[in-house]
Amino acid sequence: MDYKTKIRVIPDFPTPGIRFKDITTLLQDGEAFQQSIDDLAAAFANENIDIVVGPEARGFAVGAPVAYKLRAGFVPIRKPGKLPGDVLRYEYSLEYGKDVLEIHRDAILPGQRVLIVDDLLATGGTAHATAKMIEQLGGEVVGLGVLIELTYLKGREIFPHYRIVSLAQY
Amino acid sequence: MDYKTKIRVIPDFPTPGIRFKDITTLLQDGEAFQQSIDDLAAAFANENIDIVVGPEARGFAVGAPVAYKLRAGFVPIRKPGKLPGDVLRYEYSLEYGKDVLEIHRDAILPGQRVLIVDDLLATGGTAHATAKMIEQLGGEVVGLGVLIELTYLKGREIFPHYRIVSLAQY
Repeated sequence: MDYKTKIRVIPDFPTPGIRFKDITTLLQDGEAFQQSIDDLAAAFANENIDIVVGPEARGFAVGAPVAYKLRAGFVPIRKPGKLPGDVLRYEYSLEYGKDVLEIHRDAILPGQRVLIVDDLLATGGTAHATAKMIEQLGGEVVGLGVLIELTYLKGREIFPHYRIVSLAQY
Repeated sequence: MDYKTKIRVIPDFPTPGIRFKDITTLLQDGEAFQQSIDDLAAAFANENIDIVVGPEARGFAVGAPVAYKLRAGFVPIRKPGKLPGDVLRYEYSLEYGKDVLEIHRDAILPGQRVLIVDDLLATGGTAHATAKMIEQLGGEVVGLGVLIELTYLKGREIFPHYRIVSLAQY
């Protein structure tokens, strides 16, 4: 499927000059949504994935169905203060400012094979933070699956040792 | 499955006196997660659901896989400013203050059959707002599926004309 025909591009969102890739038009199309989840899951079907990790919030909408399809568990990565249990906190720098993410410390067991799934790979900052958190908990990051990859931002180069699968490239 | 054995109760979160029902322990258990999605989907499998709507953010983690299983589209309901397209905005009162939710105006077509899925039914405020938005867009709300129902808050009584399915009751 040519997923680009299902993804809406919205100019100047959230700020002037950005051409925002809107996946909601893909998600709301039952056939395209089904196919996208099947394609991401199929790419990692032979990897014995125990856990799919998805960052808040669009990562939930893609990661949870991929976890379901792979018969794996789903673990959310959230903004600070959202997870009620004991959390591992990870702070990382953005171009302007910083961001903080949290994961439950008991969400991943040592040795579990983990797939990261998100809507978008841009600079790779969120995926890198997510991978670091998984590894700190003893999990083994197997790969990264995303709907969209902004190839000109070269986020892929941060992860030379993971398999990265994207369904639409810009 | 006795889902209560999979849901962790965390006292005094987010505020003292609240016994928070933490679904992350259910989601991260691959077998329990699989079964919960299958059970919610099975309850509405004969309803010809076109669209599953899930409110941000935990509603994405439950609603998206239910949509996948039902071969329906998934439509997110988000906090203000998150959706990039033309939105319908809905403001509603809480016990203290108010809340605002948004949905893309083109997310639901008139006559589409819509299932609302969320993690939790408490007072029913979010589900009620969600149903109103769907109906304003011309969709037909078929029912509500949740992992957890806080029966003592009687949220169910707001929706006497919808079918409501919950997997764990407190």
